[in-house]
Formats: sequence, C-alpha cells, structure tokens
Amino acid sequence: MRVHERLDELYAIGGGPGGNRPHPSAAEDEAHELAAGWLEEAGLTVEVDHDGNLFGHVQGSDPGTRPVWVGSHLDTVPVGGKFDGALGVVTAIEAVERAGFGSVVAFRGEEVGCIGSRALIARAGLLPRAFLELHIEQGPTLAQRGLPLGLVTGIVGYARGQLVVEGRAGHAGTTPMEGRDDALVTAAGEILRVRDAALAVEGGVATVGQLEVEPGGTNVIPDRVTLSLDVRAPDAGRLDELIAAIGFEPAYRVEPVQLGSSVRAAFRAALDAHGVEVTELPSGAGHDAGILASAGVDAGMLFVRSLNGGISHSPDELSTAEDIELAVDVLAAALRRVASSP
Amino acid sequence: MRVHERLDELYAIGGGPGGNRPHPSAAEDEAHELAAGWLEEAGLTVEVDHDGNLFGHVQGSDPGTRPVWVGSHLDTVPVGGKFDGALGVVTAIEAVERAGFGSVVAFRGEEVGCIGSRALIARAGLLPRAFLELHIEQGPTLAQRGLPLGLVTGIVGYARGQLVVEGRAGHAGTTPMEGRDDALVTAAGEILRVRDAALAVEGGVATVGQLEVEPGGTNVIPDRVTLSLDVRAPDAGRLDELIAAIGFEPAYRVEPVQLGSSVRAAFRAALDAHGVEVTELPSGAGHDAGILASAGVDAGMLFVRSLNGGISHSPDELSTAEDIELAVDVLAAALRRVASSP
Repeated sequence: MRVHERLDELYAIGGGPGGNRPHPSAAEDEAHELAAGWLEEAGLTVEVDHDGNLFGHVQGSDPGTRPVWVGSHLDTVPVGGKFDGALGVVTAIEAVERAGFGSVVAFRGEEVGCIGSRALIARAGLLPRAFLELHIEQGPTLAQRGLPLGLVTGIVGYARGQLVVEGRAGHAGTTPMEGRDDALVTAAGEILRVRDAALAVEGGVATVGQLEVEPGGTNVIPDRVTLSLDVRAPDAGRLDELIAAIGFEPAYRVEPVQLGSSVRAAFRAALDAHGVEVTELPSGAGHDAGILASAGVDAGMLFVRSLNGGISHSPDELSTAEDIELAVDVLAAALRRVASSP
Repeated sequence: MRVHERLDELYAIGGGPGGNRPHPSAAEDEAHELAAGWLEEAGLTVEVDHDGNLFGHVQGSDPGTRPVWVGSHLDTVPVGGKFDGALGVVTAIEAVERAGFGSVVAFRGEEVGCIGSRALIARAGLLPRAFLELHIEQGPTLAQRGLPLGLVTGIVGYARGQLVVEGRAGHAGTTPMEGRDDALVTAAGEILRVRDAALAVEGGVATVGQLEVEPGGTNVIPDRVTLSLDVRAPDAGRLDELIAAIGFEPAYRVEPVQLGSSVRAAFRAALDAHGVEVTELPSGAGHDAGILASAGVDAGMLFVRSLNGGISHSPDELSTAEDIELAVDVLAAALRRVASSP
C-alpha cells in the first residue's frame, strides 16, 4: 500500500533512529518538499502559504464555496514515531484523490505549539468551512477497548506551572536525620499527592515530568526543589477542580475545545457504514484540529488505534496496516459526506 | 582578637559573597601566601611541600623527635563559610606560638577529597607523631546540647552510589492515570524509603542530593530516574546495615576511622582543666585528621559549636568569638600536653 511506502520515506528523513523532523529544520523542509511532489502526482494544485503550511487543492473546485481541508502535520518531536502527524497527511492525499474534492494540508510546527495553524489564524487567512484530521491515538484507550478507530469529542484543556518546595540545606554527613528539613523528601510527598489528586478527578491527568533539585550536590541536603506540572481535564470545571486540589498557580492555561458537530456526524456515519463500532473519546493532546475549531471551523478528528501501550513520541509508536487501510476508507467516506453537505 | 581579623582577611579573598577559595585556584594560593606571612610573623620556619601544603615550624625543636602538627585547610567549597578550615589554621598559629612547640600546617584541597593530606601520605612523606585539628562542627549537635566544644571520637564511614528507577514513558495528556508506570512516582516512594531506612539506624544518615529525570520533558511521563545516594554511619556494622536496607551497590566506600587515643586524652584533659563539660561525638564529614589517622598518626579533633542550625558550606556558617577564644585556650593546652608526652 502506497501509504506505508510514503510513511517509510518520511521516516527516513533526518537520519538516526526515529523520526527526526523538528520544527524548524531542514528535515521538516525536506518532508514538505517530498509531500509537495506527492500532491502534484495526485494532480492537485500546490500552494505554500506565508507560514510555510503546504496545501494541495483539487482543481476546478467551485470557487464560490469555502473549501474543506483534510490533513495534519509533518514535523515530529526529536526521535519521534512514524505515524504522529505523517499518517494524517499521507492518508489525506488518498482521501482527497478518492473523493475528488477538498484540499490536503500539512501544517508546520504542530509539535511546538501548533505554530503553523496558529499563524494562519493570526494572519486572518482564509479558513475552510470544515477540517478533517486523522491521527494516531497517542494513548491506549482504543487498544484496550479492542477497537480500530475512535471518534474524538474534543481536545482536553490543560494548565502548566510549577510547584516549588523549600527546605533547609545542610551537610549530608553532619546533619542528623531527626532535625532535617530536606526539600526533596517534601517534594517526594508532593509528587505522590499530585498523582492522588489526578486519580480523584474522572478523566483528569497530572504529570511531573521535570524536577530541579538545588543546590544539587550529592553530599548536600536539598533546600529547594522545583517540580513542573502538566495538568489536563476534559472540561473547564474538572480542570479548575484539579488545579485547586494540587494548589498551584498555572503559568498558562488552554481551555478545552469541543470538536464540531457536522464533521463529527460525517465521521460517525462513515464508521457506521463500514461496520465499525463507534466509540467517542477526548484527545489528551493538542492538535491542529483544536486550533481550527477554536477559531470557529467545523473540525473533526478520527483516531487510529495505537499499539505498544499507546506509546507516543517514540520510535515504538505503532499502528497496523489493517487499521490504517480501514481509516483511509472511513476518512474518504466522511470527506464525501462533508462534500455533499451544503 | 587577631584570630577574627585573620578570618576576615581570608574571607575577603576571592571576592563575591562567601568564601571562594576552591582547590585549585588563585584564591587558595593567595590564602596560602597570606598565611605564610603570618607564620613568618610568628617566628616560624616556613616550608611548602611538593604538594603545596604549607608548614610553619618552631625553630630549635629537637630534631631527634618526630614533630607534632596542628592545623587544617584553607580551601573552601564555592560560596563557603568563614570558619570551615580557616579557623583550624588561624587558631593553630596562636596555639603553636603560645606553646612554643610544634608545627602549623595548612593542607591543600581538603574540600575536594583531602587532596593535600592524601598526597603527602602517598609520597610517603615524613609523618608527625601527632596531629591536632580544630574545626567548626558543621552540624547542630553541640548547639543542641548547649556546649561550646566537643571531642571527636572518629570520622564516620560512608558509601556513595545510585539508585535507578525505571518506568514506562508516555504522553502526559493521552495516558490515563490508571495505566501509568511513572518512574518519578516510583522514585518518590524510594526517596521516602531511603529516609526511613536511615531513621532506623542509630547515628546513620542517608541523603538523596541529586536526581536525574529522563526524558525530562514537562509533557512526558518519566521512564527513568537516577537518584544519588550518600550514606554514612559511625561504624562498619551500621554502614553495612544501612546499605543493605536501602539495597544499592556502593560505587565507593570509605571505612570509618577512630581518632587516636593519646591526642584525644590530651584534649579531654584540656577541656577538664578549662571547666568545659566533655561531650564526645563522631564527625559526619571527612577531615585531614581522618586521613592522617588512617595512616597511623595519633590524630585528634576538637569541634567548635556551630550556630544557625549547624549550617555548613554556606556564608551563614557561624561560631561566636567567645567559643573561639575558649577553643584556642583548649587547643594550646592540649598541644602543651602532647609536647610534654614522650
């Protein structure tokens, strides 16, 4: 299947183990040039906008109607996987070619804060009336439910910030255990408390991914520990609840986004037509579809099952050829439904 | 009092806040030159050995007897305190001058593994028959007991190594709390377990001063955490017990050292003569006295009370003028006793 050959070609760019096409980089540029060639091959009109986002339009589409876009991104995290982003662009070419309708889009810099889609909206560029994005799940939910595809209800909201724990420095040899105020021991309790707070909120997650210990000598009792916090929940109420339970001041916060109802209905109908049980799930990660939806575009997402425990941002990321084939069929069918709607 | 002026002069070297005379550095050299001037002023014969250690000998000492040394070191940790090391050298000049006997010594690089005293022993240099070292306690014990001075029984043994905790990486947004194997959450439990293990061993301490979280992204569940371990106990049996309870393989281990009985007896008698209640305590930190003792020298140490919770390796390190004056009297008296012994 052509989709797999193209995924392999993209994965080979940048060299080394894993996908190495961070934004900005020569590797990301090379991926965009490669994809532009595929768009031409498919008979699409290639366009690159001011922010480097790549488009391939079906020629002769009615210029009076606002377009429908299908796509994702081609950048990766350093040492990423083969499917995240790339799958959505490569399958979009198949779907647009089969449907004879719409535009393929490959956004820039999704992994570094959806730079490409945000820039397009900031420039008040022409927005489509609908956007369809197919993406690997990046989590274990579909695999656990034994389902190949899932319908995304929205993008969870998240807050990021820090917890700072203070203690009293001292010599590791000369300070008896009894009188210590060890900031890292206190921080250990906080890490467990953050975990417990997230377990208590349905659909909520909280992660301490970075930890800075000061002064950081092997023979000095730590006097200051800074913990990073990444806290997410499917709706604003639960996000508030989790932030309050952990007790931190978010440095920034992104509100949850609901994904548009008409594209979601088209995906649902296409899943039904292909005999796939419809399961709805929120996306725990941000996506270009969320950026477009928050700008008012009727955007929808389809998730493809991720194996290996749903591992993401890793060369171990995996979806099967069978699931991908089914995903292309459903994506093309959904695009046809959106095309035929007013 | 001259001792305080000299401590201030040493503290001013290197600029910036705190004592900044790491080994090797121009600041450590400058401190040695300054001290050499004081030795000459005291009428001592100045000698610098092959490793840069500084000596000041009383002239006319009987060449047939092996010498007695009194001293400490002049290097500091970066941004250290005014008393650690420097106090022992400056007071040694007072004691040797008063006793009219012995040699002042200032070792190089004590803070980086007792480089100077170890080098002297490695070169099989002439060792003294006795060594007296006065040092700020670097812990809160004397202050807690309300005593100005303490008699050191020995240097605790210690072991250093690492604990490595592994987990499973995952996307912080898309991996539900229930299925996580977060290495940092596991490490938090280990930090508390290390603390509990040390609390269970009388006189034992254990410190995690460094912690490395991998991959270390704010939005990635950690898959590997490396904890540094610094574990100490007053004797080999308790050190074994603590290492076994924590369950790690020491990268290196330094055995406990008992301090020599005749210098200890001289300090005890001098404390008695000055009406100071004698309290014995182990040193949780390594010292040049420990290096000489392990080479067979009859070495003894006197601790001076440290205020501010016994804080060490910090500009907040503090001993009072009154305690220091008493310490000089006791040090000089102990030296006289050692001088008059065969």
